[in-house]
Amino acid sequence: MEKVIFDTDPGVDDAMALLFLHRHPGIDLVGITTVFGNADVGTTTRNALFLAERWGIDAPVARGAASTFDPRRHQGAFPVFIHGENGLGNIDIPADIAAVPDPRPAHRFIIDTVKASPGEVTLIAVAPLTNLALAIREAPEIAGLVKRVILMGGAFAMHGNASPAAEANIHNDPEAADLVFTAAWPVTAIGLDVTTRTVMTRGELASIAAEGGEALHLLDDLSQFYMDFYRHRVGDGMVVHDTCACVFAVAPELFETRTGTVRVLTEGIAEGKTVLKPDGLRFGPSAWDGHPSQTICTHVDADAVLALIRKTLLGRV
Amino acid sequence: MEKVIFDTDPGVDDAMALLFLHRHPGIDLVGITTVFGNADVGTTTRNALFLAERWGIDAPVARGAASTFDPRRHQGAFPVFIHGENGLGNIDIPADIAAVPDPRPAHRFIIDTVKASPGEVTLIAVAPLTNLALAIREAPEIAGLVKRVILMGGAFAMHGNASPAAEANIHNDPEAADLVFTAAWPVTAIGLDVTTRTVMTRGELASIAAEGGEALHLLDDLSQFYMDFYRHRVGDGMVVHDTCACVFAVAPELFETRTGTVRVLTEGIAEGKTVLKPDGLRFGPSAWDGHPSQTICTHVDADAVLALIRKTLLGRV
Repeated sequence: MEKVIFDTDPGVDDAMALLFLHRHPGIDLVGITTVFGNADVGTTTRNALFLAERWGIDAPVARGAASTFDPRRHQGAFPVFIHGENGLGNIDIPADIAAVPDPRPAHRFIIDTVKASPGEVTLIAVAPLTNLALAIREAPEIAGLVKRVILMGGAFAMHGNASPAAEANIHNDPEAADLVFTAAWPVTAIGLDVTTRTVMTRGELASIAAEGGEALHLLDDLSQFYMDFYRHRVGDGMVVHDTCACVFAVAPELFETRTGTVRVLTEGIAEGKTVLKPDGLRFGPSAWDGHPSQTICTHVDADAVLALIRKTLLGRV
Repeated sequence: MEKVIFDTDPGVDDAMALLFLHRHPGIDLVGITTVFGNADVGTTTRNALFLAERWGIDAPVARGAASTFDPRRHQGAFPVFIHGENGLGNIDIPADIAAVPDPRPAHRFIIDTVKASPGEVTLIAVAPLTNLALAIREAPEIAGLVKRVILMGGAFAMHGNASPAAEANIHNDPEAADLVFTAAWPVTAIGLDVTTRTVMTRGELASIAAEGGEALHLLDDLSQFYMDFYRHRVGDGMVVHDTCACVFAVAPELFETRTGTVRVLTEGIAEGKTVLKPDGLRFGPSAWDGHPSQTICTHVDADAVLALIRKTLLGRV
């Protein structure tokens, strides 16, 4: 069992990823940390507590950053047209959620949890990387204590989604992302290059819900609004961005990867763009020099990923 | 016959491209314009005159820009480790070249030639885009009079060569390139995405030279230094960057393309990077808005391109 802290901004595709982590027998979900992104952090925290309660997840939920790592950065509007006004596709969410967040801010929860199990904790981050950057800034020594970081973010050999250049999680906090990619912990980035090829059809999700009972019906319900948004982009289904990162944690053989140094552009028209300097190639001196080699995903066996998601959500792995 | 002005910085792979244009029956080479890039503009102009003389090319040679479009931009050292100190692989070049350049600067030559044959002139540019940018600035109306621009430059779905982010021609003058990509003329970019997959082996070039007589022996001789540089990058051969752009002019069916708006990053660690906003996708407002759709090459049938180069250089097309 791999200890995982799930850093998330639920968010519709975050919800599926959360249930995947909860139901995969290889994962020991030791914490959920929230951050702004798909909605404000109050909303994403409420949503994490709501989903944990409904799905019987007993991991603590720690509320994280409300805004970007660099306070000077302008923050855009939340994508209510993708995730709904309430971040979960505008389903009804009861006002009375019994669970409360962990008293610690997310980055402190991460630091404490990592230090309590040195070398054992994987951070799966599927949101703006603000909490991870805050943790690294406050306790740089955790870079050497984290097992690995797996993040959903970036667009390497293709266009972005938040802008022509940049993927949304990175675009939402480029300074944080650049710090995470250049820190001395092993990072694997699952970017749009693979997630946009991993589309669960509306029919497939309905079929999983039909077999899976109440928990899966909730997932299906909250995903409808998101699938409506994606209809003119990927056909009738949902890009399972965040779950791809979780699948990588347990089935890396379903992905092709490449290694190199990653920098994030923090200025100009392409801010938030991720640029890889592949290992083994020679260039003159550049801003990529002196930073650790990380891993990015370049290709995915999407059918196998979708099959594993189905099995896992249905508790058959 | 398509009227072509060849904007070039010879440069080893420029030499092959020049001979290709001269020998292809579909091309009417109406002018050669030079620019700094692979060497200083005095050297590239001398080299163009030398090659034209040796190969019996009677198109006028007009000397162009010695430095970047924006004079504030720092100019790097010339790549003598790729093209040799003399820009042509350090072969012997006689001091006494009878031919002299056209009296006009390159950008004025371009303007005059385009205006003399409105709608008929193709600009094939395989160097920093300074001359084209100067022409557009001085006579914006030529954008509507040029038949098309085909340029070797950019790196869209892959790393660069001048830096991890940027291809050399664009990196050498990002402001000029951004102006060229956003001007109202049709541009097709042949970037590293296709050129780096188009490698002529040393043996193949030797074989062409053995069949082709003096002109081809010269090409083979001047290419040896360049192939030595590329040996640890692509095996034993040469990336025929610039000739790819010329092949596109006569055999576009050997390339796959994609359309969209292209911007060039002019600041930050990735300056010189080309970023495509593909047509047909929706984004929020961005710096790509309001500019014309252009074409980039995404894939190439390299074997067919190499075969056409062989046939053309040998005068058999």
